[in-house]
Amino acid sequence: MSQPDPKRVKTDDDAPYELIYWPVIPGRGEFVRLVFEEAGVPYSDVAQNIEKGMNAVKSLTSTDNIGNEHNPPALAPPALKHGDLLISQTPNILLYVAPRVGLAPKEGNGVYHLNEIVLTILDGLVNELHDTHHPIAISLYYEDQKEESKKKSGYFIKERLPKYFKYMQRVLDAKTSGEGPWLYGDSLTYADLVLFQAVDGTKYAFPKSTEALKKSGEYDGVFKLYDAVKERPNISKYLQSDRRRKYSEGIWRYYPELEE
Amino acid sequence: MSQPDPKRVKTDDDAPYELIYWPVIPGRGEFVRLVFEEAGVPYSDVAQNIEKGMNAVKSLTSTDNIGNEHNPPALAPPALKHGDLLISQTPNILLYVAPRVGLAPKEGNGVYHLNEIVLTILDGLVNELHDTHHPIAISLYYEDQKEESKKKSGYFIKERLPKYFKYMQRVLDAKTSGEGPWLYGDSLTYADLVLFQAVDGTKYAFPKSTEALKKSGEYDGVFKLYDAVKERPNISKYLQSDRRRKYSEGIWRYYPELEE
Repeated sequence: MSQPDPKRVKTDDDAPYELIYWPVIPGRGEFVRLVFEEAGVPYSDVAQNIEKGMNAVKSLTSTDNIGNEHNPPALAPPALKHGDLLISQTPNILLYVAPRVGLAPKEGNGVYHLNEIVLTILDGLVNELHDTHHPIAISLYYEDQKEESKKKSGYFIKERLPKYFKYMQRVLDAKTSGEGPWLYGDSLTYADLVLFQAVDGTKYAFPKSTEALKKSGEYDGVFKLYDAVKERPNISKYLQSDRRRKYSEGIWRYYPELEE
Repeated sequence: MSQPDPKRVKTDDDAPYELIYWPVIPGRGEFVRLVFEEAGVPYSDVAQNIEKGMNAVKSLTSTDNIGNEHNPPALAPPALKHGDLLISQTPNILLYVAPRVGLAPKEGNGVYHLNEIVLTILDGLVNELHDTHHPIAISLYYEDQKEESKKKSGYFIKERLPKYFKYMQRVLDAKTSGEGPWLYGDSLTYADLVLFQAVDGTKYAFPKSTEALKKSGEYDGVFKLYDAVKERPNISKYLQSDRRRKYSEGIWRYYPELEE
């Protein structure tokens, strides 16, 4: 028997990236997909197969799941498998992947500045938008909390949307945003992909309100960055592929009555 | 003039830690304070002076704030200043500080596992608890969204609290939790401090419901860990000091009617 070729011995970093997320919807899995797509790094996506995807998520979120010898259990998808490692929580997955695929610095202050921007967009804009159609309980149908949803959406459109757009514009106006349309430094980072997806989902869920923000002229940097990401060759190809899910249920839903 | 003594030239890691947070309430600043207190690492806390604290937070959160040459602007406190670096977002501050003060590994999988556990507790249990008294809008008084608060609290107590306690217990039951009462590995990490504060705040806001969880016997590991943190010498001293704020407004509020 010949010795194994050292080049073929897989190190952790050579292990395949495997995304575990709900099938059908874009959801939070989309933030992870965009990073791999922009970087041109191969990844498997269990959500490509509805049955396999559902089973993988059910097994992940089962209350019998107490992890394994390498990893604590996850509460919710998305999760990412990379060799023996299994991690969850969107900003945590991005923190792990982005420096490995060239979309974030590997060390130094930029690690924490990018994580801060991403946490603010995800924990703020994305989570609050979700709660506009589920203000009372995630276990209730939208129809059973519609009145509260209308009330919450009114405040969201009037107060919270401008607050988050203003924040993103301020980050772009900061000296740390450098040359080009990007949030941090002189080149695209994973924070720009997070902004793109957060704005894209907001456009879908609250089209009139997002258009009004655009027309105000106060957030030109945000919309310019949105366009710049959309036109990236790899992102553009991805958005036209069937790997990109259509919006339907999940975080970003379109209920016209919530904009009235 | 004599040359400066090289030992006195401050490197970034020697710079003082300065916490910026609202005065009076414990709030999210508490997660950061507990890390410094347990580690016995000096930090300044602008909230110690009400006027200075209010001014620091107002300046941080001003929409005119576009950061400085080293840092992008923050959206909200807590923020941490360390030399030239200024960072915000609670889990981000903890990610930065904990390995520097010996409460988290500096590299490897543990970095991501701990960040995952902390994000799940903060983004889940803590944020959802906050929303029980502000389900419609943060800009409205509680009294103006009391009916919705009651409705949301019912679901929170019945569905969400047990979900998060079960998650924390599962992490403790995992092989990665090691010897001792700790969430991850064989010794205390910053995740244990986060669990302590999250449970302590929950006990204050929903005392009957937390007592019922304790009596069920299903989450013994969680309550054992809570006690183990509370009894740590540095934490015990801190909790008895006037540096520890009393609960009042903020995330953790006690409205008896929300438990009825």
